[in-house]
Amino acid sequence: MSQQPPIPHPIAPLPRGFRLAGVRAGIKRDASREDVTLVASDLPATGAGVYTTNLVYAAPVAYDRALTPGRGFRGIVLNSGNANACTGARGLDDARAMAAAAGRALGATAEQVLVLSTGIIGEFLPLEKIAAGIAAAAERLGADDAAALTAARGMMTTDTRPKLAGATFAAEGSQYTLFAMAKGAAMIGPRMATMLGVVLVDAALEPVDAQRILAEAAEESFNCVSVDGHMSTNDTVLLLANGAAGGSPLHGAGLAACGRAVMGACQSLAREMADDGEGATHMIRIEVSGAADREAARRIARSIADSPLVKTAVHGADPNWGRIVSAAGYAGVPFDPARLELRLNGALLFRGGSPVAFDEGAVSASIRDARETIVELSVGDGPGQIRFFSSDLTADYVRLNADYHT
Amino acid sequence: MSQQPPIPHPIAPLPRGFRLAGVRAGIKRDASREDVTLVASDLPATGAGVYTTNLVYAAPVAYDRALTPGRGFRGIVLNSGNANACTGARGLDDARAMAAAAGRALGATAEQVLVLSTGIIGEFLPLEKIAAGIAAAAERLGADDAAALTAARGMMTTDTRPKLAGATFAAEGSQYTLFAMAKGAAMIGPRMATMLGVVLVDAALEPVDAQRILAEAAEESFNCVSVDGHMSTNDTVLLLANGAAGGSPLHGAGLAACGRAVMGACQSLAREMADDGEGATHMIRIEVSGAADREAARRIARSIADSPLVKTAVHGADPNWGRIVSAAGYAGVPFDPARLELRLNGALLFRGGSPVAFDEGAVSASIRDARETIVELSVGDGPGQIRFFSSDLTADYVRLNADYHT
Repeated sequence: MSQQPPIPHPIAPLPRGFRLAGVRAGIKRDASREDVTLVASDLPATGAGVYTTNLVYAAPVAYDRALTPGRGFRGIVLNSGNANACTGARGLDDARAMAAAAGRALGATAEQVLVLSTGIIGEFLPLEKIAAGIAAAAERLGADDAAALTAARGMMTTDTRPKLAGATFAAEGSQYTLFAMAKGAAMIGPRMATMLGVVLVDAALEPVDAQRILAEAAEESFNCVSVDGHMSTNDTVLLLANGAAGGSPLHGAGLAACGRAVMGACQSLAREMADDGEGATHMIRIEVSGAADREAARRIARSIADSPLVKTAVHGADPNWGRIVSAAGYAGVPFDPARLELRLNGALLFRGGSPVAFDEGAVSASIRDARETIVELSVGDGPGQIRFFSSDLTADYVRLNADYHT
Repeated sequence: MSQQPPIPHPIAPLPRGFRLAGVRAGIKRDASREDVTLVASDLPATGAGVYTTNLVYAAPVAYDRALTPGRGFRGIVLNSGNANACTGARGLDDARAMAAAAGRALGATAEQVLVLSTGIIGEFLPLEKIAAGIAAAAERLGADDAAALTAARGMMTTDTRPKLAGATFAAEGSQYTLFAMAKGAAMIGPRMATMLGVVLVDAALEPVDAQRILAEAAEESFNCVSVDGHMSTNDTVLLLANGAAGGSPLHGAGLAACGRAVMGACQSLAREMADDGEGATHMIRIEVSGAADREAARRIARSIADSPLVKTAVHGADPNWGRIVSAAGYAGVPFDPARLELRLNGALLFRGGSPVAFDEGAVSASIRDARETIVELSVGDGPGQIRFFSSDLTADYVRLNADYHT
């Protein structure tokens, strides 16, 4: 097997006017782990959100969806260990109470705070622990590396490491800074990963623009990742843009630069999520090209990404191209099998409907010895292409998920 | 864990005018296992077939699809260990050569023989071994239990046991007998399982009727099973009806009785396939009701059946209803989450959008101690319902599929 990548480091400086903290509130069974995170914006910020499309969505999703896109947000409060999902009317009350508690700590109203929860489904929030956590976090808000790291740790469930991204960009004569953090290691599925993401930027944005650039970024990042094909009840990515770096709301080229920064950060986080897939020993990068359009390419990529047979083959360092080609074949997207061309870690394995002679031992070794396995499938000569990330399926995934709840 | 069910026994008497044999031809790596099966019909039989909808389909699928439905079939030849898939024009020639060799052994033409292959994708058939196997099988054709068992063993790949079903039915004053056998333990997925099935009946049927009753039976059996959601290149169910029990082609009530017998046999085999899912320690029976229509119920059931998180939860004897409810929520079928009602092994776990207090230890024990886990989900008051079968996901599944090819 191969080594895990290090945590990306240059975190600070954070975007101006944001402070963060993650604290241990005793919601997770392991009391040594952070489970409440508070994000404060010194200035009222524009907020946007992208949410799960699952019909069964959690209370915080309902709460945030009603408020975004909008203006005047002062912060985000987040807990891990409990998803506040499938908790009915009481769950919605609890999400509001959590926002209100954070608002009190920040000198703001409940409607100025967005809420994120992740963890066990179907249990009511331990509101007293969360309130105590919020109070503690409010005392420790900071803008240094340690603050960012503990905040990101407060999102984690089965993640093995915090996931962070940062960027700077110049627009309209000013320099802006972006910070993003995410969690997600399973229940990563179609449309959006089981994931939470927070993007903070010190530019000013109109709500409609913030919403559009966040939606575009999610589509090309978190919606191109599948660990297990299971879409969660809580998937949410939030963006706060507080304008603390000065300047009027970005438009034109400045807005485009901000969009690129948001997308880059989201893509970096999405890739880390696949790499940190539960029990994963390999990240799988799937490049589909030649499809009729991007959505066709995405469907083919997702079919490959979700196949347990493809995922176990990669785990076994087995260049089993038949599983890849057949997964493409049932994606529900028309193509001519005689036009297929498949490469695995650069080696041509299949072309024109027939197998190609290749050095099986060498390709197997190339899978075994690298953290990333690269699947390149061309399905024709159309313009549609996509880059999609998945991870291998291991006995550790099974162990983690057979034992998670009880 | 629980015990595996015994092999269903009363096999003989087989339908009149059919003889079978399975022999060891050395195609599988384990030379002690049967890998060529021959089915002979003494009378020319009506033949029908239902096939994979994968765009990447194997040579025998192309061969059989061109011939069915039709009349005059004298037999079926089958090999395991090699799927003759993704083998291009040579693969199609090989399938025809295999049919021709079986035809010679049976005194028939290549077009009077249907072909099935299962096993590794992308390698050319070892035609000499297959020809020798066909010749040996032709010498051993029989109609007793041993013949039926070796024939069914000749289909097996990672199956742990042969899968057999039988039935008798009366129609228009005659007594008819049906025998069916199948294989499939993984690559069992949407639309049709990775599976081969053979149904033999000594009634006379018109080709159009044979095709219809087989398609209906497959829809309500093999298309209600998912082990890993991966649809194979080779999925095929064939029906031969040779009329050896006498009488003219069945119509009306007689045809309906035959259809029920075919469906019953296919449903029994489908259930066995789920129960024998690779590495499975539990069969999962999913009953969805109250959907708008049957197809909506099927999509919800399949979403639950294919979720690795549901499958690992069952493996861990974890009554994690949140995973079940959330899998329903992303099935792409509209329903009102507040109308959901979920029972697991009879215990009510979720109703009206909220969790219900239940004895977690008792439900967990009920999962752990039974081979079958029963998931009952009502999504509203519509007429659509379905029974769907799946199996749990275990570390053994991962081991089997990480190591199968190399």
